[in-house]
Amino acid sequence: MPLRAVIKAGGSKGVDRDAVADLVAAVARQDEIVLVHGASAETDRIAEAMGVPQEQIASPSGHVSRRTDRRTLEVFAMAALGVENFHYVEKLQQRGIDAVGLSGLSGRLLVAKKKDVRAVKNGKTILLRDDYTGTVEAVNLPLLAQLIGPGRVPVIAPLALSTDNEALNVDGDRVAARIAVAIDADALLILTNVPGLLRDIDDPSSLVAETTLEEAETLAHGRMKKKILAAREALEAGVEEVVIRSATGDPAVRTVIRA
Amino acid sequence: MPLRAVIKAGGSKGVDRDAVADLVAAVARQDEIVLVHGASAETDRIAEAMGVPQEQIASPSGHVSRRTDRRTLEVFAMAALGVENFHYVEKLQQRGIDAVGLSGLSGRLLVAKKKDVRAVKNGKTILLRDDYTGTVEAVNLPLLAQLIGPGRVPVIAPLALSTDNEALNVDGDRVAARIAVAIDADALLILTNVPGLLRDIDDPSSLVAETTLEEAETLAHGRMKKKILAAREALEAGVEEVVIRSATGDPAVRTVIRA
Repeated sequence: MPLRAVIKAGGSKGVDRDAVADLVAAVARQDEIVLVHGASAETDRIAEAMGVPQEQIASPSGHVSRRTDRRTLEVFAMAALGVENFHYVEKLQQRGIDAVGLSGLSGRLLVAKKKDVRAVKNGKTILLRDDYTGTVEAVNLPLLAQLIGPGRVPVIAPLALSTDNEALNVDGDRVAARIAVAIDADALLILTNVPGLLRDIDDPSSLVAETTLEEAETLAHGRMKKKILAAREALEAGVEEVVIRSATGDPAVRTVIRA
Repeated sequence: MPLRAVIKAGGSKGVDRDAVADLVAAVARQDEIVLVHGASAETDRIAEAMGVPQEQIASPSGHVSRRTDRRTLEVFAMAALGVENFHYVEKLQQRGIDAVGLSGLSGRLLVAKKKDVRAVKNGKTILLRDDYTGTVEAVNLPLLAQLIGPGRVPVIAPLALSTDNEALNVDGDRVAARIAVAIDADALLILTNVPGLLRDIDDPSSLVAETTLEEAETLAHGRMKKKILAAREALEAGVEEVVIRSATGDPAVRTVIRA
């Protein structure tokens, strides 16, 4: 019986698309794979070229994220659909995999609730009305299921449709977790530009090979926190394991998280 | 019985996406519609912002077109998938139509033969080896058919996969014609930024309301020639009529071409 897995390819600098495509193609010949990708480095690159200023916002709890006004959302769509998704579909087709690229807007694949984004500015907390980020609430499983199978891979750009039919930027790690739950995946594999979870963030040799969700939450810092949140969403809903590792290098160098 | 039609929305300046989406949504509630779009104005805009020089080439027969090296192909993908396709899918979803956006690479929807592009430079004809344009030879009808139906519209970006699995830029009008033939469409509607075919190119009042393919070929100049070539491909393969008109304005102002 084929395994089912969701593979998330990070959009940060240092994530090698060819390495991701090699890995996806190797497993997708026999297993059932969905690829979800990010687009953050390309968003930065395009925003700079197009002269769209990028702003970081800090939430009241101290979490720092990208301010996504409508112009930035449109840049994100260019990066996610026009660069990352396009390249992954082409690279998978070149490796003999029949990839289908979609954003979550298509066929209402991902429907999301718009976030109430609060930002701290000059010591005051304000609600940002024109922020286009959301949290996925529903996955169109019948549509996705049509595209999954040995040798076939849906490639999903993390854009969703809001309940008001506006396009929203949604977190790629959490989209991957939601899809893993929806398709009843055995595993969620998060490919990033670091080898996994470190016990000591300054010591690459302190990689944690296997851990529990509880321990992972105490070890995660910065952007890794979002990945562990995604891991929690997947594991609590029945996905057996979440693996975090680099897209390149030894596949045995990784962190496996189990509930 | 629902009608079947392919609607092609031009990518030139002056084609109003909201007007296109209004028109598509109005007919797609009862009829079976495929939307194909261009991306030329967005390609120019992004190429300029990203500093990718654009070159026009003249064929030995005098036809002028965009030089599509790999960098320009990638800009075209950003424009077609990341801007035009994204906006059309969002606008159709906002109008209650369940749009699914795809490029021709996805699911090998469009397979094309790479063109031997010959260009005249300083009086000499040369073969451009790194030109990524093609002519569609096959449409994946089973995939497309899954996405067509009342209230559902596939939105197709004119990129295809070559027989060597490279991405190619393909002409949107001719893609629309090939898809019209593949789905056995009743009509092909080409929405552009001019009201139709003019008997005298300098006299807007000389619009030809109805004509034959033969007459249309004698009247077409410049970019209109490609549309008439697409019309020929559609009509010769059994599509009943090809309509060329502006996306905005009175729908009765148009040119209807029949075999």
